[in-house]
Amino acid sequence: MLAENSYGKSGIRLVKILRGGDRHDFRDVTVSVRLEGDFAAAHVAGDNSAVLPTDTMKNTVYAMAKTHFDRDIESFGLLLTEHFVRNNLPVACARVELSERVWVRLTVEGRPHPHAFSRPGEERRVARVTRTRQGAIVESGLEDLVIAKSAQSGFSGFLRDGYTTLRETDDRILATSIKASWTYAGAPEDFDRAFQEIRRTLLETFATHDSASVQHTLYAMGEAVLKDHPEAVQVRLSLPNKHHIPVDLSLFGLENHNEIFVATEEPYGLIEATVRRS
Amino acid sequence: MLAENSYGKSGIRLVKILRGGDRHDFRDVTVSVRLEGDFAAAHVAGDNSAVLPTDTMKNTVYAMAKTHFDRDIESFGLLLTEHFVRNNLPVACARVELSERVWVRLTVEGRPHPHAFSRPGEERRVARVTRTRQGAIVESGLEDLVIAKSAQSGFSGFLRDGYTTLRETDDRILATSIKASWTYAGAPEDFDRAFQEIRRTLLETFATHDSASVQHTLYAMGEAVLKDHPEAVQVRLSLPNKHHIPVDLSLFGLENHNEIFVATEEPYGLIEATVRRS
Amino acid sequence: MLAENSYGKSGIRLVKILRGGDRHDFRDVTVSVRLEGDFAAAHVAGDNSAVLPTDTMKNTVYAMAKTHFDRDIESFGLLLTEHFVRNNLPVACARVELSERVWVRLTVEGRPHPHAFSRPGEERRVARVTRTRQGAIVESGLEDLVIAKSAQSGFSGFLRDGYTTLRETDDRILATSIKASWTYAGAPEDFDRAFQEIRRTLLETFATHDSASVQHTLYAMGEAVLKDHPEAVQVRLSLPNKHHIPVDLSLFGLENHNEIFVATEEPYGLIEATVRRS
Amino acid sequence: MLAENSYGKSGIRLVKILRGGDRHDFRDVTVSVRLEGDFAAAHVAGDNSAVLPTDTMKNTVYAMAKTHFDRDIESFGLLLTEHFVRNNLPVACARVELSERVWVRLTVEGRPHPHAFSRPGEERRVARVTRTRQGAIVESGLEDLVIAKSAQSGFSGFLRDGYTTLRETDDRILATSIKASWTYAGAPEDFDRAFQEIRRTLLETFATHDSASVQHTLYAMGEAVLKDHPEAVQVRLSLPNKHHIPVDLSLFGLENHNEIFVATEEPYGLIEATVRRS
Repeated sequence: MLAENSYGKSGIRLVKILRGGDRHDFRDVTVSVRLEGDFAAAHVAGDNSAVLPTDTMKNTVYAMAKTHFDRDIESFGLLLTEHFVRNNLPVACARVELSERVWVRLTVEGRPHPHAFSRPGEERRVARVTRTRQGAIVESGLEDLVIAKSAQSGFSGFLRDGYTTLRETDDRILATSIKASWTYAGAPEDFDRAFQEIRRTLLETFATHDSASVQHTLYAMGEAVLKDHPEAVQVRLSLPNKHHIPVDLSLFGLENHNEIFVATEEPYGLIEATVRRS
Repeated sequence: MLAENSYGKSGIRLVKILRGGDRHDFRDVTVSVRLEGDFAAAHVAGDNSAVLPTDTMKNTVYAMAKTHFDRDIESFGLLLTEHFVRNNLPVACARVELSERVWVRLTVEGRPHPHAFSRPGEERRVARVTRTRQGAIVESGLEDLVIAKSAQSGFSGFLRDGYTTLRETDDRILATSIKASWTYAGAPEDFDRAFQEIRRTLLETFATHDSASVQHTLYAMGEAVLKDHPEAVQVRLSLPNKHHIPVDLSLFGLENHNEIFVATEEPYGLIEATVRRS
Repeated sequence: MLAENSYGKSGIRLVKILRGGDRHDFRDVTVSVRLEGDFAAAHVAGDNSAVLPTDTMKNTVYAMAKTHFDRDIESFGLLLTEHFVRNNLPVACARVELSERVWVRLTVEGRPHPHAFSRPGEERRVARVTRTRQGAIVESGLEDLVIAKSAQSGFSGFLRDGYTTLRETDDRILATSIKASWTYAGAPEDFDRAFQEIRRTLLETFATHDSASVQHTLYAMGEAVLKDHPEAVQVRLSLPNKHHIPVDLSLFGLENHNEIFVATEEPYGLIEATVRRS
Repeated sequence: MLAENSYGKSGIRLVKILRGGDRHDFRDVTVSVRLEGDFAAAHVAGDNSAVLPTDTMKNTVYAMAKTHFDRDIESFGLLLTEHFVRNNLPVACARVELSERVWVRLTVEGRPHPHAFSRPGEERRVARVTRTRQGAIVESGLEDLVIAKSAQSGFSGFLRDGYTTLRETDDRILATSIKASWTYAGAPEDFDRAFQEIRRTLLETFATHDSASVQHTLYAMGEAVLKDHPEAVQVRLSLPNKHHIPVDLSLFGLENHNEIFVATEEPYGLIEATVRRS
């Protein structure tokens, strides 16, 4: 009667200072660990003999970060999952998710400072490594990258029914918060460079696309990633439509030529799709 | 190259006052609508002719709430999905999620007031209806129901490795925030009563179970639902372990007999499982 | 050049289990401590010799909770501030804020369970104790108590200018989240009972008042507290106007007799006032 | 019996596109308006004849943004408060708060794009204008600017009592989220330039200061602003101490030379002070 099940530790907050002499790097990653396997005795009989405590997972992340976290989050995730699958007999599958917040150097008198940093934004770089006895799958991605364009965006020619009141427009703000993830045909030589290049493709495509809808731009972004990055085999994009509503100022004797908007949080459109090599 | 995709409107905030003469009911539901189907032309060619605007979905929820929302959220979800599948040719699947916050009557001079209410908590009753041309599946559930027990809970006899430092205990606080969902063999006669009875089973089992672990109590809760409610065919439970850490007071000459704890948010264990009729 | 300054620890999460044999109580309080006094040397010269670490404040809260927290949060705050003022020479003023989330017993087979609890809501009971060498002031209150009424509420006859488009109404939802605090002429015999009675007065007045505006109902609530509770000398109320906007359904051939509303978060009105004995 | 009172609208979300031909600017400001004055009749008698609706305040912000918001938020706040005080007889004081989120141009092929933007962070630039019949006071500031330094920071020589367990250190992470506000002797010629320069002083001082405590660095930051910017007359700083706790890895046979930390949210120190010209 016990079907799918998993357990693990979430919200493991790791900061590592990489000390290259006087010049430091500041890494800030939140890690979660999930294990699947034969844990029926714990559920059914209260027998914990196969259950590695989630507290141990947390300790493992900190300890292995000391010795093994000096590069990208994907490489660290590969090591962590290997540890959990190799050393833990009941485990059939280990999944590690890593979410990194980027800190950048402060500038002092025009030069980057060696040990002072700011965390500019909400954007997070993410990786998910899923490993079974057969091997590991790496997904790389980003989340909460908030962007907007104020031209080259419309929405018209749509389906109408008795509840449709939306007006067609050839000029609207298109604003979203990108959540994107992708997989590679094999491990790229350099996860950092692959990430930066795919991120740039996503942003440049968003900026320059002549958008007929969120769907249209989403697909263009996914297609561009696959076209420009042969190592990527599929891209998943989740784009909320963060609506900006033009304010009717005619009551006050003013014309609003798409200048004044209300930014809204709710309700919001949500467009999701996977673009894959055929 | 376009693979899985969907779109819809989320965060549709609906309040309905049901006016039974002077006695009102106050219903507060957040709705999301998701459609899947053949939307390739919109993605690939910017052709919106098959795309019903998400703004229309919002209008539909409000308009249909006027005429059709007078009972449980499951029934309203069944109607909404039927509308979207029946009237919208490109749609292969419509999914509507409803999340209700309960408002209760204020008491004045010992009696329930006819039109004044309070919203006591974070707990939400939820329903998800997924409909294809073949039929509809209803999932009922609840989220964010925060509970704790301060006795009959331990964690010992677990697997250890070189990173294990956790001490065994036969007395710890077990605190969680229940996220549960279940499906029925067929539509129950009364969704409200079924919900209330399953909710009660979950809480009573949590309270009275002699817990060897979160897994152990999770399974007992799922098993009790299936045992006591023949109409339920499977239960999915997601239970974060909201850790309460005993404070070491010995440095101050005090003994802490499991009285004083730090409530923590991060990191947290997360235990998830589905219990299904065999 | 150093003017007003203070320091302290916030977000001290304290849970205490009061063990009365098999019957437990579950207390959940977040505490903050702030000290003011002569800390100029720390600021100006980096001399910490007068600075008690905020980590020590945290330890003090946990240690004193073991021996002294068995009643209301006001009494605990009085003890904590006394400790910080008495034992800490540079301190001119200590302020302790306590915010309690209420846990209630789960019901099993119709009876309250001795050691299983749920946390029903967002509402918090709060206390702030401010102590100088001259004495202590206690403020009691509550926050995040969300309430609404669906009748006996209008808004009309208001001032208009060239930017006014709001329509008058004699029937609107009045919804708010009460933030209230009050002071006593002297310490009441029983802080718990005083709190419960004032809370009831606030809710009953809200429910039964014939509201011409949020201001009108706010004042009625404050006035009722002063009238019914001679020990209270002033009440401060902060009431956001959580707007519920009727949906125009006429486009769909439906009339909305104040039944269907959009609940909104932003923007919101905010009405604040103190009512004091003359 | 009615004492201090005020009312207004909060959470007014304004986006303005400044259209300079093909090159746009994207401004994103949340505004709140508060009025104080003689509103006793509304509270006591339900007489709204002196109450301008908060909905009108919202309309006013959008309408005046069309015609008058093309520079810094301080200038817009001055105009808004002038409008409310001049045209609204019962008003004794109008306070407008503006909180701006900065959007920056996306880069395409190495060049800034004319109409595509990203919102890099949580940091907000803020202004508060308070106007009475006697004149206006402008406070400028910033919030949620998250920074850290991994060297030149210690905490030692502090006061100890029986609850002190903190160890002295000459090497700890100092991390905070700056909330700063300042006032000017008179309106600066260019609010934008004054803001940017004071912001830079705050960051450079944080980076280069040899910190004996948060208090010590806070004061140095305030002092530097006053020293380098003659137009500023006082600075208020609120600096949470975002604790990073070194992880004890000795149990796993590893030494942690201040490399591996747990980032924590609760509890947190909070240091606040005003530095003023003597």
